[in-house]
Amino acid sequence: MLKLINTDNQARTGILKTKTRNIETPFFMPVATKTAVKYIDNFELNKIGIQCVISNAFILSLKPGIRLIKKAKGIHKFSKLNTAIFTDSGGFQKIRESFFIKSTDKGVLFRSPFDGKKHLLTPKKLMNIQNTLDSDVAMVIDDMPLHDESKAATIKAVERTHKWAEECIKYHKNKKQLLFGIAQGGLYPDLREASAKFISSLDFDGVAFGGLAIGEPSKQTYKMINSQVKHFPENKTRYLMGVGCPEQIINAIDAGADCFDSTFPTQNARHNTLFTSKGKLVIKNSKYKNDLKPLDKNCDCYVCQNFSRAYLRHLMKAKEPNALKYLSYHNIYFMNSFMKDIRTSIKENRFQKFKKDFLKNYKK
Amino acid sequence: MLKLINTDNQARTGILKTKTRNIETPFFMPVATKTAVKYIDNFELNKIGIQCVISNAFILSLKPGIRLIKKAKGIHKFSKLNTAIFTDSGGFQKIRESFFIKSTDKGVLFRSPFDGKKHLLTPKKLMNIQNTLDSDVAMVIDDMPLHDESKAATIKAVERTHKWAEECIKYHKNKKQLLFGIAQGGLYPDLREASAKFISSLDFDGVAFGGLAIGEPSKQTYKMINSQVKHFPENKTRYLMGVGCPEQIINAIDAGADCFDSTFPTQNARHNTLFTSKGKLVIKNSKYKNDLKPLDKNCDCYVCQNFSRAYLRHLMKAKEPNALKYLSYHNIYFMNSFMKDIRTSIKENRFQKFKKDFLKNYKK
Repeated sequence: MLKLINTDNQARTGILKTKTRNIETPFFMPVATKTAVKYIDNFELNKIGIQCVISNAFILSLKPGIRLIKKAKGIHKFSKLNTAIFTDSGGFQKIRESFFIKSTDKGVLFRSPFDGKKHLLTPKKLMNIQNTLDSDVAMVIDDMPLHDESKAATIKAVERTHKWAEECIKYHKNKKQLLFGIAQGGLYPDLREASAKFISSLDFDGVAFGGLAIGEPSKQTYKMINSQVKHFPENKTRYLMGVGCPEQIINAIDAGADCFDSTFPTQNARHNTLFTSKGKLVIKNSKYKNDLKPLDKNCDCYVCQNFSRAYLRHLMKAKEPNALKYLSYHNIYFMNSFMKDIRTSIKENRFQKFKKDFLKNYKK
Repeated sequence: MLKLINTDNQARTGILKTKTRNIETPFFMPVATKTAVKYIDNFELNKIGIQCVISNAFILSLKPGIRLIKKAKGIHKFSKLNTAIFTDSGGFQKIRESFFIKSTDKGVLFRSPFDGKKHLLTPKKLMNIQNTLDSDVAMVIDDMPLHDESKAATIKAVERTHKWAEECIKYHKNKKQLLFGIAQGGLYPDLREASAKFISSLDFDGVAFGGLAIGEPSKQTYKMINSQVKHFPENKTRYLMGVGCPEQIINAIDAGADCFDSTFPTQNARHNTLFTSKGKLVIKNSKYKNDLKPLDKNCDCYVCQNFSRAYLRHLMKAKEPNALKYLSYHNIYFMNSFMKDIRTSIKENRFQKFKKDFLKNYKK
């Protein structure tokens, strides 16, 4: 359940209580697929103030295997991640053909990225994996329709998603672990609404908008969010899966979303793009060659407090691993501060002004 | 000058005072060629207790260029490395053909690793670069004979080394920066002795054994060290260049050396090999798959305090960058503790016993 603290129009702030932590919402989760955020030390996540990360249950079940993680007494003790941890099936990997094979009525057929072997991931199996991993929040398995699928195919996917949602509840045995449902519906508002209603009717601890931000025009994304959000219960955390772009996040919060995850900030850092209060900064750009200013003078992360653009560019051009560390750290720090500022603005009933100012300054 | 605190047979402990720091000897320097130790944050070096690193003056003069580093007010302010910093010419790169072209009477002809252009590095140029970088300790440029060179060729290289040493003193203008000389001599004890005497006769702040540990049998290495060390002044730091293997270091300290640098610990970490009090541990080995013990139960680094062999192996197999960070951190921490323990044992006149016990436990 989400304990609401304040709402400002549709935007909300509250507390999601999990077994390890009281997470303040809205929040952003860095992706730690294999229990590691790329280039950011597990302990540095705490230094930054990250409340929660998301790992991939299916991948972890293949390697290192749930037997080892069980022996280590769960994902927290195994990884020493001192944040809350969501786990999911990686069903969204449907958009990556190398990984996803097909959906059947029984579950999703995946190809192991390690040895190419086929694995049928059923609701029962996925619940067993996640129960054993002992993460804070387990996600159901869903059948994500792609956006170019016909309405008939989308209906079929939504039906499977609903059937699997019920089965996940049935097989979810870890009482200290929360379980979130996922609503689908492609780009069809009526299917989106029906799915939101159905998922909301089940006994989940939170709900998710699935299958969005996978390439559709952003106007469509918000249309789908709006069609579903009104059917989601007030007292459940609403998770918009796979979104990590600051502009999209602030707009989705304005529409009523509470929770986000994406590799976007760390991937951007590794590809030279930094988030700053003035928008994106491409560090490899030659104009920063002799620039002794910090990445963002408004940022109080230790990277901005210590290193110049010229130094970071030097390390990046020299392919020094520390460059990727410093830049990833900054972007994750930026995201975390951004979410903190959003929460404060909602508490103080000035989210609309905060959003307007942010988007004005954050030039693309 | 080196302020000696105690000697235990040939082994010595003391203080090398540089402009930024009092370095306790003997000490080990991680390599930060471009002002970054691979996978270890500049600030983590302080957390580990690293006193000093070594950067490459020639490489930095090419990229990002000394103009930028001068604008940033020197290598410390540019990189925020909060350790003492040695700089050298990278003349030892003679063993890497892609880099070194040839020695002439005027200096060393290098090929830029960035654009292939030729650069003649003269004593005057190298001193100007290092004076501008403003490191704590500048190294002279030397002509390193390879071990398969004839005695005549080695004599020629030693003569050049001596001529350049005098020129380096002449062109060294940064009064706060120390300047170390380098003695050569190939594998000829008489040339080694003569070179040690000549270099010792000049007004250097420290002296180095050059051109050792580049592939010769280790018996030869110690023979050459012994032939030179007796001619080196007591009150000057003795730097054995390019050595980073724990067994070699402890033997060299026993012979009278004070200072070491090498990429060996970080390179080993990146290639799965960890240093422990019981010797080398190859983390990718399948026997560690389910091993929940730390890398080294006698190590108090945060990696050993928190992560299991099984977890580190999992990250390494998954090619997670954090694996390289944790493993590099451990190896550098190990080296630093090792040097600290050696210093204490010399202070307490029990170095011989420490050495014997260490080598007994540190099985290859």
